[in-house]
Amino acid sequence: MTDQILITGCGTFIPSEVIDNETLVKAYNAHVEEYNREYSAEIAAGDRTALKNSSADFIKNASGIEERHVMEASGIIDPKRLRPNLGDRNPDELSYQAEMGLAAAKNALDQAKKSTSDVGMLISACSNYERPYPSLAIEVQKALGINGFAFDMNVACSSVPFAIRLAYNSLLTQPELPGVLIVSPEFYTGHLNFRDRDSHFIFGDAAGALYLERSETSKSSNAFSVKNIQLQTHFSNNIRNDGGFLRQAVNRTDPWHPRNLFSQQGRAVFREIVPLVSEMILNQLDEEGIRRSSLKRVWLHQANSKMNLLLAKKILEREPSHAELPLVLKNYGNTGAAGVVLAFSESQNLDPGSWGVFCAFGAGYSAGSVLLQKC
Amino acid sequence: MTDQILITGCGTFIPSEVIDNETLVKAYNAHVEEYNREYSAEIAAGDRTALKNSSADFIKNASGIEERHVMEASGIIDPKRLRPNLGDRNPDELSYQAEMGLAAAKNALDQAKKSTSDVGMLISACSNYERPYPSLAIEVQKALGINGFAFDMNVACSSVPFAIRLAYNSLLTQPELPGVLIVSPEFYTGHLNFRDRDSHFIFGDAAGALYLERSETSKSSNAFSVKNIQLQTHFSNNIRNDGGFLRQAVNRTDPWHPRNLFSQQGRAVFREIVPLVSEMILNQLDEEGIRRSSLKRVWLHQANSKMNLLLAKKILEREPSHAELPLVLKNYGNTGAAGVVLAFSESQNLDPGSWGVFCAFGAGYSAGSVLLQKC
Repeated sequence: MTDQILITGCGTFIPSEVIDNETLVKAYNAHVEEYNREYSAEIAAGDRTALKNSSADFIKNASGIEERHVMEASGIIDPKRLRPNLGDRNPDELSYQAEMGLAAAKNALDQAKKSTSDVGMLISACSNYERPYPSLAIEVQKALGINGFAFDMNVACSSVPFAIRLAYNSLLTQPELPGVLIVSPEFYTGHLNFRDRDSHFIFGDAAGALYLERSETSKSSNAFSVKNIQLQTHFSNNIRNDGGFLRQAVNRTDPWHPRNLFSQQGRAVFREIVPLVSEMILNQLDEEGIRRSSLKRVWLHQANSKMNLLLAKKILEREPSHAELPLVLKNYGNTGAAGVVLAFSESQNLDPGSWGVFCAFGAGYSAGSVLLQKC
Repeated sequence: MTDQILITGCGTFIPSEVIDNETLVKAYNAHVEEYNREYSAEIAAGDRTALKNSSADFIKNASGIEERHVMEASGIIDPKRLRPNLGDRNPDELSYQAEMGLAAAKNALDQAKKSTSDVGMLISACSNYERPYPSLAIEVQKALGINGFAFDMNVACSSVPFAIRLAYNSLLTQPELPGVLIVSPEFYTGHLNFRDRDSHFIFGDAAGALYLERSETSKSSNAFSVKNIQLQTHFSNNIRNDGGFLRQAVNRTDPWHPRNLFSQQGRAVFREIVPLVSEMILNQLDEEGIRRSSLKRVWLHQANSKMNLLLAKKILEREPSHAELPLVLKNYGNTGAAGVVLAFSESQNLDPGSWGVFCAFGAGYSAGSVLLQKC
């Protein structure tokens, strides 16, 4: 058996609806005005803090984001709602995340020139699931008509490198598996707090998918060999969402309770994640005897343009070019675990033998880095 | 490197509070009376169906369950609440499922005679999570003081055999991993519909844990070698829970909406799962050239005593003895993915060389079977 495991297909799904910063801020500021009006007496008496308006410039400066694609815009930009407003699909209809994952999966299989019979294992790897059971991955498996087995996993924004590790290990030990499909359907606007000035602008919705197989079965003209995988987790509450199945049992029933939605201590995350990730990648290069100067691509989790630039500088020891550090934040925002797949998808044009690092990080803390060589 | 991967440690955690059928039925029937009183006019007019009382005998006959251990009893048996009633722990406290998983994990490491430095990868494998991020597994990892990495996975009641597959593959391909810890903290009463006569009695709370390592590092006097693993998934809506993060977005906000909690079509599940699982296990025995008569143990997902008996009969081609088919349903109920670990934990006294099958199945549909040989 080979020890060459390749990523031979990469696909994405981007929802068609778009919200730019101006529109998002208009909705948020309308909420702020309404709130400050409603509580004006308490605010005047000093018993409550007035909410502060936001601005499109603040968002762009803080994050590099100018717009985001979302599954449903009208509910998010309605100041009275500030949440997606979707039909409740019945169980026989394809669920929202399955629809997202399916579209990305088809594109990944197309790039790999593979059919559904070439998939033996399907992993869904993302930050949150619209239902606990049956597993979302099994619904995507059925929609594609795949035999074999499927399961869901979650290690937040780092989910895809972790899934690559499992796919890699499984392809090396299970000769009966023709290939592994990873889908990452991130519907982040469903668990984002659109009433929170510091985080309401961060995320967009998107899905990514990767197909992995052994080198001897590859028909792809755009394959990358997986050369090294590093994974780390270190517990932190600095990015957290407690909106799980115990909400009622612990009497935290308000859907706007900040603990029922995404929240983060952004400065602490920035300060703690940057050294963790840069050291992980530098150790990985050392382990494989690859010089920093040989790295032609740094595909990163699309967290924040400043953070990504700083990480790339630490890794490359110089300013990266636009080509070396693909950034899709401006138009898509942070798309959770799917973000690194979006960046990878947009920038695969490397010469054979070139090295790149595919790295994601986030809540957990979790971080995973995959060293790739273009075939 | 070896190709012998062993399960050398097994641990469980059983919460101390107990609800017997009589007590559960009393609470349910009080809810029924209140409901029928509240809607008496509509019921009399034929516009609404009266709810039916239940009985302890009905539950015992339907499921074999006489009592279940739960994380919090008083809320469940309060007819006005019919849900656990727990304090909302702050993020710096150990979360409920982490507490459960941690206790089981310590017992598994004790049985394996291992310390936390012997764990390189920690997988949480269960049906539902009290939060999406940070991953529960990372919190257990921190509480144990484990280096390496951790992540959550979910393929409902079959989660543990799927996690065994991932652990097995990883131990064969990652020599740097000393061992893998799997925890399965099932807090099922948090997502059970205690207003539903057909399902309110099914589940209890419990956690299971397994430690896996290569044979050359084993110090356990109670080890089992993993000889064959079969996994299958086939999408079905017959066991489903849509209580995920899109509840608000799809305007399904009532916490008692049946789709926000566990629901199943029990008869269809019974009819469809039995042939799927029995064929999977018989194929597995064929693949390894093991005769049915050589099987000394059938450790099954603790679903339902009739289903488990029927499965064991199909596999063994005869009536199983109590020792051959360990059942813990009577005292614990169905404990989701943890159930097969509870059964395994209670019945490991086999002669060296003896064969057993460790098999779980459930929502998905999903099914996983692990053929074990006592060392």
